[in-house]
Amino acid sequence: MSEAMWGGRFTKTVDEMVNEFQASINFDKRMYHEDIAGSIAHAIMLAKCGIISDDDCGAILQGLKDIEAQIEAGEFDFSVDLEDIHMNIEKRLTEAIGEAGGRLHTARSRNDQVALDTHMYIRREVVAVQKEIINLQEALLETAKKNQDVIMPGYTHLQRAQPILFAHHLMAYFGMLSRDYARFSGVYQRADIMPLGAGALAGTTFPIDRELVAKQLNFEQIYSNSLDAVSDRDYIMEFLSAASILMVHLSRLSEETILWCSREFSFVELDDAHCTGSSMMPQKKNPDVSELVRGKTGRVIGHLMAMLTTVKGLPLAYNKDLQEDKEGIFDAIDTVKFSLGVYAQLIRGMKVKKDVMRKAVEEDFSNATDLADYLVKKGMPFRQAHAVSGTAVHKCIAEGKYLADMTLPELQELSPLFEADIAEALKPETCVNQRISLGGTSTEQVKLQLTAAQELIDAEKKTNTNLTSQQI
Amino acid sequence: MSEAMWGGRFTKTVDEMVNEFQASINFDKRMYHEDIAGSIAHAIMLAKCGIISDDDCGAILQGLKDIEAQIEAGEFDFSVDLEDIHMNIEKRLTEAIGEAGGRLHTARSRNDQVALDTHMYIRREVVAVQKEIINLQEALLETAKKNQDVIMPGYTHLQRAQPILFAHHLMAYFGMLSRDYARFSGVYQRADIMPLGAGALAGTTFPIDRELVAKQLNFEQIYSNSLDAVSDRDYIMEFLSAASILMVHLSRLSEETILWCSREFSFVELDDAHCTGSSMMPQKKNPDVSELVRGKTGRVIGHLMAMLTTVKGLPLAYNKDLQEDKEGIFDAIDTVKFSLGVYAQLIRGMKVKKDVMRKAVEEDFSNATDLADYLVKKGMPFRQAHAVSGTAVHKCIAEGKYLADMTLPELQELSPLFEADIAEALKPETCVNQRISLGGTSTEQVKLQLTAAQELIDAEKKTNTNLTSQQI
Amino acid sequence: MSEAMWGGRFTKTVDEMVNEFQASINFDKRMYHEDIAGSIAHAIMLAKCGIISDDDCGAILQGLKDIEAQIEAGEFDFSVDLEDIHMNIEKRLTEAIGEAGGRLHTARSRNDQVALDTHMYIRREVVAVQKEIINLQEALLETAKKNQDVIMPGYTHLQRAQPILFAHHLMAYFGMLSRDYARFSGVYQRADIMPLGAGALAGTTFPIDRELVAKQLNFEQIYSNSLDAVSDRDYIMEFLSAASILMVHLSRLSEETILWCSREFSFVELDDAHCTGSSMMPQKKNPDVSELVRGKTGRVIGHLMAMLTTVKGLPLAYNKDLQEDKEGIFDAIDTVKFSLGVYAQLIRGMKVKKDVMRKAVEEDFSNATDLADYLVKKGMPFRQAHAVSGTAVHKCIAEGKYLADMTLPELQELSPLFEADIAEALKPETCVNQRISLGGTSTEQVKLQLTAAQELIDAEKKTNTNLTSQQI
Amino acid sequence: MSEAMWGGRFTKTVDEMVNEFQASINFDKRMYHEDIAGSIAHAIMLAKCGIISDDDCGAILQGLKDIEAQIEAGEFDFSVDLEDIHMNIEKRLTEAIGEAGGRLHTARSRNDQVALDTHMYIRREVVAVQKEIINLQEALLETAKKNQDVIMPGYTHLQRAQPILFAHHLMAYFGMLSRDYARFSGVYQRADIMPLGAGALAGTTFPIDRELVAKQLNFEQIYSNSLDAVSDRDYIMEFLSAASILMVHLSRLSEETILWCSREFSFVELDDAHCTGSSMMPQKKNPDVSELVRGKTGRVIGHLMAMLTTVKGLPLAYNKDLQEDKEGIFDAIDTVKFSLGVYAQLIRGMKVKKDVMRKAVEEDFSNATDLADYLVKKGMPFRQAHAVSGTAVHKCIAEGKYLADMTLPELQELSPLFEADIAEALKPETCVNQRISLGGTSTEQVKLQLTAAQELIDAEKKTNTNLTSQQI
Repeated sequence: MSEAMWGGRFTKTVDEMVNEFQASINFDKRMYHEDIAGSIAHAIMLAKCGIISDDDCGAILQGLKDIEAQIEAGEFDFSVDLEDIHMNIEKRLTEAIGEAGGRLHTARSRNDQVALDTHMYIRREVVAVQKEIINLQEALLETAKKNQDVIMPGYTHLQRAQPILFAHHLMAYFGMLSRDYARFSGVYQRADIMPLGAGALAGTTFPIDRELVAKQLNFEQIYSNSLDAVSDRDYIMEFLSAASILMVHLSRLSEETILWCSREFSFVELDDAHCTGSSMMPQKKNPDVSELVRGKTGRVIGHLMAMLTTVKGLPLAYNKDLQEDKEGIFDAIDTVKFSLGVYAQLIRGMKVKKDVMRKAVEEDFSNATDLADYLVKKGMPFRQAHAVSGTAVHKCIAEGKYLADMTLPELQELSPLFEADIAEALKPETCVNQRISLGGTSTEQVKLQLTAAQELIDAEKKTNTNLTSQQI
Repeated sequence: MSEAMWGGRFTKTVDEMVNEFQASINFDKRMYHEDIAGSIAHAIMLAKCGIISDDDCGAILQGLKDIEAQIEAGEFDFSVDLEDIHMNIEKRLTEAIGEAGGRLHTARSRNDQVALDTHMYIRREVVAVQKEIINLQEALLETAKKNQDVIMPGYTHLQRAQPILFAHHLMAYFGMLSRDYARFSGVYQRADIMPLGAGALAGTTFPIDRELVAKQLNFEQIYSNSLDAVSDRDYIMEFLSAASILMVHLSRLSEETILWCSREFSFVELDDAHCTGSSMMPQKKNPDVSELVRGKTGRVIGHLMAMLTTVKGLPLAYNKDLQEDKEGIFDAIDTVKFSLGVYAQLIRGMKVKKDVMRKAVEEDFSNATDLADYLVKKGMPFRQAHAVSGTAVHKCIAEGKYLADMTLPELQELSPLFEADIAEALKPETCVNQRISLGGTSTEQVKLQLTAAQELIDAEKKTNTNLTSQQI
Repeated sequence: MSEAMWGGRFTKTVDEMVNEFQASINFDKRMYHEDIAGSIAHAIMLAKCGIISDDDCGAILQGLKDIEAQIEAGEFDFSVDLEDIHMNIEKRLTEAIGEAGGRLHTARSRNDQVALDTHMYIRREVVAVQKEIINLQEALLETAKKNQDVIMPGYTHLQRAQPILFAHHLMAYFGMLSRDYARFSGVYQRADIMPLGAGALAGTTFPIDRELVAKQLNFEQIYSNSLDAVSDRDYIMEFLSAASILMVHLSRLSEETILWCSREFSFVELDDAHCTGSSMMPQKKNPDVSELVRGKTGRVIGHLMAMLTTVKGLPLAYNKDLQEDKEGIFDAIDTVKFSLGVYAQLIRGMKVKKDVMRKAVEEDFSNATDLADYLVKKGMPFRQAHAVSGTAVHKCIAEGKYLADMTLPELQELSPLFEADIAEALKPETCVNQRISLGGTSTEQVKLQLTAAQELIDAEKKTNTNLTSQQI
Repeated sequence: MSEAMWGGRFTKTVDEMVNEFQASINFDKRMYHEDIAGSIAHAIMLAKCGIISDDDCGAILQGLKDIEAQIEAGEFDFSVDLEDIHMNIEKRLTEAIGEAGGRLHTARSRNDQVALDTHMYIRREVVAVQKEIINLQEALLETAKKNQDVIMPGYTHLQRAQPILFAHHLMAYFGMLSRDYARFSGVYQRADIMPLGAGALAGTTFPIDRELVAKQLNFEQIYSNSLDAVSDRDYIMEFLSAASILMVHLSRLSEETILWCSREFSFVELDDAHCTGSSMMPQKKNPDVSELVRGKTGRVIGHLMAMLTTVKGLPLAYNKDLQEDKEGIFDAIDTVKFSLGVYAQLIRGMKVKKDVMRKAVEEDFSNATDLADYLVKKGMPFRQAHAVSGTAVHKCIAEGKYLADMTLPELQELSPLFEADIAEALKPETCVNQRISLGGTSTEQVKLQLTAAQELIDAEKKTNTNLTSQQI
């Protein structure tokens, strides 16, 4: 791998270097479907408005469909010299149908064309991401339902704090994902605005009908300002924001999964598909998938930062900098969909070790609050009850036992308010089931959560199916 | 400024250092109103549910109101030793009303208390930010209305491309701000969820009524999962995302303002209030405000980055890391409100140099497209018309003149399709007014935009007034 | 907290709002010492070069020293109307000594003056940060030395992998900090360049002597280009990069500390000063300091992001955006110094639970590699040895025991190569001490590390003491 | 593009999905050379230490060289099932040479192997980036030398401030690049540390010789701690920091290039290779390359943010998250090298419009400072001289002329100190050449800069050639 001498470095010509630097075909080709669908809608509109002839329109439509078929059959050669997906397709179209192909570009420019493609692409992918969100929500809900009797320690500061239901813990992630879903609905709204007809920047002099294009392509809104239409990248930045927050959620779930898989916690065992093992150390299963998802959180946040930085300080209207909008979001889309999809599997495939979790609850003092609450309910002031509870814990630690191991006389030495029912009060089930406030961890409250969650999923699915059917 | 010797560095004791490191009172005191309002709602609920007595409730309410009056009168000493706003107020309350003060904390923890305060604070500030957005939208609309006859060059790649109306250019920013407004409405929805009652993490054993608290504090929703309630920072991250995108918009407007103020452009002159000048160089006015807003864009994006990084990988439920949520968003709130407010003034105070802009249009070839479109409409194929237009421009450049300077015979040498009406076709007004597509730059289309913008503002104001009245 | 009516929002005048927005005095006042020291050096140079008289110089020097004394005595009123630290001091100086005060600003501008102050301030703080790095390195080294016989599980993927020395683990952080130290030395070099004399942007027409100023202020280099001198913010961005990487290191140490404090690991117990406890749950100690440091990592990374974004795309030379360079780095400096300082205490105060760690090693299969290596050394091919080891582990898991619990006959059933010395080979001490490669975890290798670490600290201290003495 | 039905989404099996998610071969294959070179050094060492036989070593070496030849001839099929470059090569090696191939992995693990490859790869690319930096520095220096007589307005706040030499302006970027070069030297030092021998995390039990490997591969240092060796990603983060700062510099140069190409400035004309034009609007040349480089700044900063976020909070030692270190840095390397290379061409190919720049200086008041300085040198106090200059400017503006157009009597009305030599004093050449302070814009000072710059380049080249020769 010898290095070229000084000055002899670039064997490529200037033009080749710059071409490659500028060309977007290697990544924007994934929008071929949107480019073709957008062109079809544009051609039909041009014909309806009398700007091109019906014959030309027919030839264009047939030509575009042929090209799409070629692309999907893997028979289309994309060329870097033609820079981008738009030129690649237009060139091929003109070769195929002659002069009529050139008329397709009437009353549009690459600035509004690429904006249209990207809006359509992102809009479709928002719907796909939402489908994956629902999928993971279902996995969480199923797993919560299956494990309604599993009690685990609830943590704050990674210290055991109070016993909770494992189902309750899982459902916290359901809540996060519900907000993610809602956030992506906001992204959808901001992506669902039709830019075509903005021309290069100022609109067009041709008597076009933007509503007709919007209707064909199922757009809810149309940009009311042509400069805004070609320079708006809000929906990209907003998608990346929503994706970043979603990945932060998955990074938290990953952190917990990794903890739970550790020898020290041993709360769950992952399916072999989501780990890598070792022939020699069969007990060691590395939670690779969880680590990767946690790691890829950085990547999506990085794409968000990249986009914000790129758009910062750009004058209107179109600037070439904006071409940088695609690779990051394409990668973010792949990452988010993969992460959601693989986590739905992981959660479904995860073996929950009920006994280990229960032992962790029993061999701890996370029922100290409940001992204090017991006294409060018997009439002792709050602060005093806390003090008694603290004394009891101290005593247990000194004697190497737990609160449930204390005899009634021992307890009564600390306060005469203790009665036989204290035994029941200190059981994990009691501790859990006492937390009956709305959204609390009691079995009853969790059941309500599960029911509401199923209703939310049903509603989301309905919307999602509907939106899916609207994508072109 | 001598330096301490090795090892003798810290004159503070460990406790002092750590206290200061941990204390949040220096920044969370700005939520005093929310803390008190939340406590009042909590106390009333506790009394209604029979958890505290009506007398205690009465004492608590009076005590809290007194404290709020002291704070607003500047007579309250905040103490770092008491760590945060909650402890500062609770301590003072107990000093003032005795034991009843201690009962206020029944059935809540600092984890859900701080979450409540922050939700209320952010919710209020979202409304305040939206009010500032409307204010800037109005400034843009007014200025657009006042300058409907001003023609300027439209740019792509910072190259003059086509003549546009200055009003059209301004309204592009109106469009961005409309999306900002909508995005903040999404933030509002995700902030408008009531966390109190989640306790430390698992709910509470007391028979509280979370709906009653929510109703008193005008919350639309209640967290349905207590773990989620105390660890959710989505609304912070989402606020910072929306704020970052908004600042990116203002950074673009700033970049343009700075360009327009340069000697080279000279399109506008800012009011002295938004510049700094020099006694010696009276012609030089530095657009400091615009530069600062552009610069502060980085700051808000930085806060977003900080928050995403901080939450990444945290296990449930509450972790002390989450205390880092406040300083960044407080600073972002101040920055965004200031930037919007000052820009509304700047836009209103800006002197538009109509003649300079028009000259920039006339002394250019941005009507070359129109010349080509003229020929297309006379029947010449698109590519051929482009070629003729290019030849005309080349000829003009060689002879040091512009398209409008060419005589009819000169033009007819290039194509017999040129007729006397070409003079009209090349006028800036014509170029502008031909762009009649929806959202285009023609006077007529811009008028439609202005009308629609006024309607949007009216609707936003109604919503905003309504939300403002709902804040506690 | 009533809201102002529409339009009546700002009770401040435009000027007040803008003033406050622009003023930097609230944060740049912390550079008062540098501003005064820089002015003293400038004045002496001006006099030496005959640009001001010796009398004027004498008056200026006395005036500046008086002002510094006032500031340090807390008797100086900083005024927002005077915008920044430079104007606050110059104004006071002129009030005190009359016309001579005005002459101080000859041959300089605020652009190069603020650059000088910031360079000096950052340079000093780099040295202070390096001192704190050394302090933490010493704490790690001391703690490693004190615990040379402590064996713990080494982890990959948070799975126990191989037994290691706790000292070895700690020293990994020593290595990271050594690179941090070196990185900050690079920052020092790029901060140690003298900008004064660059004027507003182009140099000055006065016959100044920049070398003389540089010599007085102990600068190693002088900017050779005046435009670069006033617009360079590299050293700020580079400081924030180095600080971000350092904080990432501390976030890793924090994550581990938090894990080690959990009930599940219980490897260490922190000193009460670095935790918060609960009167009721005395067993629960929240590692707040570690959580805060981990959380504050986001903050420092955010400041880096902010600065990179702010400088991106700025034309030369000075732009007001650059004023945004200070608040972020000031906060980063405080955060980094605090984090390092508090961690040095935390590490020194941490109680290491040797028995718990050893038990974690014994009750595991992290010696499976050693069993395989034993066979390889007896002549068995690598892959086959791995397979035997795997079978042994499987057998143990089925029987609920560990490798060390297997009898020799049991082992010999798996391979005749096992002999009595296998018992020794499986002991944690043996596993550790066999890893004799350079930098490995064997006691011998770790001792070499500790010695080298002490030498490095000694060298760093020498450099640091030297640099400290060079700060003005 | 129909969408799959609910639940039927993934046609891939779980294993396929996860494999693809985990596999790194698609990006880490670019380190094939380093992987092979590292394995060769490892094999030679193993043989020298008697751990493998000389025959095995010979077979391994020949096998690896054959594989490298296949790869370079494009005849090697990389397999996703084999996950990464290491396994792809090892598998092929074992197929080719049998059992000996398996012995190559003795005393190493994939954790230290991938670390070695990445260190070597980054080290090489640092040198390549530095070569490109030198190349751009040379382009700047050549262009500055060729244009030493070109005077342009110097800007602050994008307002014309003082006349400067165009060469001086260009050399500001030379200064930035010099610091970039130095920063990358720091990256080199932190990449130039040899990790092999760290094993999975704890070192190895084989009697290896790490110095011998380091010597063969020209490493200056060896990691002294095995945990640190496998988990250190500092050099990645530091490379990305240095790259981000460098890109920020190029974004500033890009911003200026774009401004200079605008019709309003018209200071330079780019070579057609670095623009895109339009057949119709031949006067319009879009500075696409500059816009792309400015845009790609965001991308590199994004990669830095991604990496910092990914490593934040990871416990020791190796975690799968760290696999995310490669794609970002690979892309950053390509982007930085391309951007530097293309800018060297752009600067060399740029046509400087001397007359336009001079006109911009003459038709302005940027000599107002010089008029004031003239009076100061004639004895007038500074503030008074400023006032006179301001009055003169005001008068000129009112009369539509410039300072140089004022007659001597007109000036003398303002002050009797004006004499005939004022005409000379106001000439652009005089204004420039008066700024004689070190690093100022005078012709003489700029000549000194150019000479020093050539010396720096010579020194950098020597170092770079030397380092280039040390890469394996």
